[in-house]
Amino acid sequence: MLPVNFITQLGALLPSERLLTDPVDCYAYAYDNSRKIFPPDAVAFPITPLEVQAIVALCNDCEIPLTPRGRGTGTSGGSLPEQGGVALSLERMLRVISVDPANRVIVAEPGVLNQTVQDAAEPYGFFWPPDPSSAAYSSIGGNLATSAGGPHAVKYGTTRDHVLGLKAVTGGGEVIKTGCYTTKGVVGYDLTRLLVGSEGTLAVITEATLKLTPLPQSRSGITAHYRDAGSCASAILRIMALPETPSALEFLDEGSLDLIRGRFPGMLPDDTCAMLMIEVDGLSRYIPEACASVLDACRNVGLIHAEEVADAATLWLARKTLSPLLREIAPRKINEDVVVPVSALPQFLDGLAQLSSKYGIANVNFGHAGNGNIHVNLLVNPDSGDEMDRAENCLNEIFDLVIRLNGTLSGEHGVGSEKRAYISKEIDAPTLALMKEIKRLFDPRNILNPGKLFP
Amino acid sequence: MLPVNFITQLGALLPSERLLTDPVDCYAYAYDNSRKIFPPDAVAFPITPLEVQAIVALCNDCEIPLTPRGRGTGTSGGSLPEQGGVALSLERMLRVISVDPANRVIVAEPGVLNQTVQDAAEPYGFFWPPDPSSAAYSSIGGNLATSAGGPHAVKYGTTRDHVLGLKAVTGGGEVIKTGCYTTKGVVGYDLTRLLVGSEGTLAVITEATLKLTPLPQSRSGITAHYRDAGSCASAILRIMALPETPSALEFLDEGSLDLIRGRFPGMLPDDTCAMLMIEVDGLSRYIPEACASVLDACRNVGLIHAEEVADAATLWLARKTLSPLLREIAPRKINEDVVVPVSALPQFLDGLAQLSSKYGIANVNFGHAGNGNIHVNLLVNPDSGDEMDRAENCLNEIFDLVIRLNGTLSGEHGVGSEKRAYISKEIDAPTLALMKEIKRLFDPRNILNPGKLFP
Repeated sequence: MLPVNFITQLGALLPSERLLTDPVDCYAYAYDNSRKIFPPDAVAFPITPLEVQAIVALCNDCEIPLTPRGRGTGTSGGSLPEQGGVALSLERMLRVISVDPANRVIVAEPGVLNQTVQDAAEPYGFFWPPDPSSAAYSSIGGNLATSAGGPHAVKYGTTRDHVLGLKAVTGGGEVIKTGCYTTKGVVGYDLTRLLVGSEGTLAVITEATLKLTPLPQSRSGITAHYRDAGSCASAILRIMALPETPSALEFLDEGSLDLIRGRFPGMLPDDTCAMLMIEVDGLSRYIPEACASVLDACRNVGLIHAEEVADAATLWLARKTLSPLLREIAPRKINEDVVVPVSALPQFLDGLAQLSSKYGIANVNFGHAGNGNIHVNLLVNPDSGDEMDRAENCLNEIFDLVIRLNGTLSGEHGVGSEKRAYISKEIDAPTLALMKEIKRLFDPRNILNPGKLFP
Repeated sequence: MLPVNFITQLGALLPSERLLTDPVDCYAYAYDNSRKIFPPDAVAFPITPLEVQAIVALCNDCEIPLTPRGRGTGTSGGSLPEQGGVALSLERMLRVISVDPANRVIVAEPGVLNQTVQDAAEPYGFFWPPDPSSAAYSSIGGNLATSAGGPHAVKYGTTRDHVLGLKAVTGGGEVIKTGCYTTKGVVGYDLTRLLVGSEGTLAVITEATLKLTPLPQSRSGITAHYRDAGSCASAILRIMALPETPSALEFLDEGSLDLIRGRFPGMLPDDTCAMLMIEVDGLSRYIPEACASVLDACRNVGLIHAEEVADAATLWLARKTLSPLLREIAPRKINEDVVVPVSALPQFLDGLAQLSSKYGIANVNFGHAGNGNIHVNLLVNPDSGDEMDRAENCLNEIFDLVIRLNGTLSGEHGVGSEKRAYISKEIDAPTLALMKEIKRLFDPRNILNPGKLFP
């Protein structure tokens, strides 16, 4: 419960329609896509950087937890107000401050949706490359907080590669300005990328200068079906060695394919054990040659069939079918987004199969193969204590395997609350200690998203 | 002078052939390409990370300044041992630890030359995009310390975009490991990019995991000559709006062209007031179309002549001629590397002309126009006190103009000692204070490259 005095002061900073304190109202801000529930004691909706600063300063003075929040689409619990306090919803900071095609820049407030940025850039022939599957309804503030990726990251990189500068309010209440407006700049430390991916634990971003990329003239795609995962993995390596990197290189494993075949008989060949969906983009005239190169790289003894599919709907059909099916059969599945070096994919997929059988936990794996970024889904029933215990042990071994293969525990979802128990597997003690000291520097009273990211 | 006791302890860490203390020997490590001279009291040549750690720990214990150094090619004084103490030369940490084409990764020690990385990657069809003009003899440690760029940054980005992870020793003597081995990774704060560009003030990099990029199949180029700088600037904007970004887009102003014409009559048309050199790269079959698009974008009323030049030597001829000429006529010129938004280039070039005439200081300007990154050279005679005073005032106004145009004071050279007096023009007080606190966190006794980067 918040002290009455604090509520009064908070109420003085915002008009009543931009502050929720009734528990029923606050409940809508208690969860995100991690499906955990932690109700905040209040929800504040600032619309200006000055309001953000005033709220942060007040929470800092009173040592009240403050959890910044975009649209709650994160899957790692990064926006959950675990320790109560104030949820700082940035969803009403919606201004696209400037669209500057000559300099390939958009400046926007954190509540602006990813899709809105795309819509603002498109008439000028540009786009903003981060494309999380939530792009239509996730905010750039959230994209920045997690350094969101998506299928196109294999060619275009992730959020951190597409931000030039930020304005932000630190946990200590200081207004800072990082980076610059230009594509080059090396004056001072790179605080921009320190904030990107910091999951709201260091500062609240109030404005972002985003770097745009020219839209490709054309896109096309290829689907390839394999008899075994090993052949599929070899093809991934050959595709990634082409002089032109594909704009997407997505993978579905046998578990994923079985799920689709179970519901949509005939959509996929019966003998496909692994499938690739590959997108290429660029100048229209270059597309046929690019497709030919990819098709050539796809060919090996394990290939059943590969073909060009020019329309995006057909290309992504199997992939789009999968997520709702997964949600249906295992609504509370454990969904990870580990990354291993591309060359370690065969070994990783073997290991997953072994761990699945060892622990009796079905898994379904798919994802951004060109980055080695695999969404590992453990299909569990959370109401079975025994199954959950086995799943936890299985997950622990999966993470150990990832680290042994020189991978990382999260490619795009972030640590949040879901992975903090495991972060020490990846980050050694002195480096973690340094990160904690950086947190203390930005947020001396530990008010910003307290408890997140660290074990 | 170093305490005798310290020298004894330092001597115990390294064999005598890897430690210099004779002032005559040390003098070779007193300067860099900034042409200032500050002799260190000792020069240490570690060859292992453990030796680096031991040297840092000893300097930290004894509070002795320690200035890390690559190959001394920096132009901002970043590697000058201004406060004496120990110069830590990393030039003997020369191991390429692994070349892993399947994962597009090279792991290397900091003393490895940029060119060595290119040579190691090339047989596998890859390259490492940072290409400072010193690439043949600058080390990747130095490239990382300054987030070096080069002409290809317009398409490929700068050093910070091509590093996956680092091992380093902080000023406090802690060994840290940042980032990961994969192209995606969002576990913990992005310390990798905090160290990149920090000019040796936070930690000594002992190992870098570099991300490789597929070599383009082909390159070609175009030169374009303009009657006036305004038309040239318009062409730059049109070229940067093409769906395929050129791999280089370099600019020479009238002062540069006059210098070349003076020495090489006939090399350039007499009426050219501004010139572009544009490189495109990609699949061989795409090159003609790309050249045609660029040629089309070059065309405007101010264009005198534009033509395709397939061989690199011809494309870069004028540019390569320029640097030695500049050094000849003004060996101690003031050389800046400011950046303005591309759309502000015409205004910036006008402003430079006005300031040149106001202060009676000739300037010659050229550089990476696609990034708005212009090398402004003030042709001064440092022996004339009056001229140097005027130049300093002129430079001060140039920096003010850059900031007014929403630019940055350095695109690729860094702050070092040369620009620290000006950094507050760009970075506001709270942000600068935060950077200083980060410095204190990594380097509590201020031993690493003390005095650099901050005013």
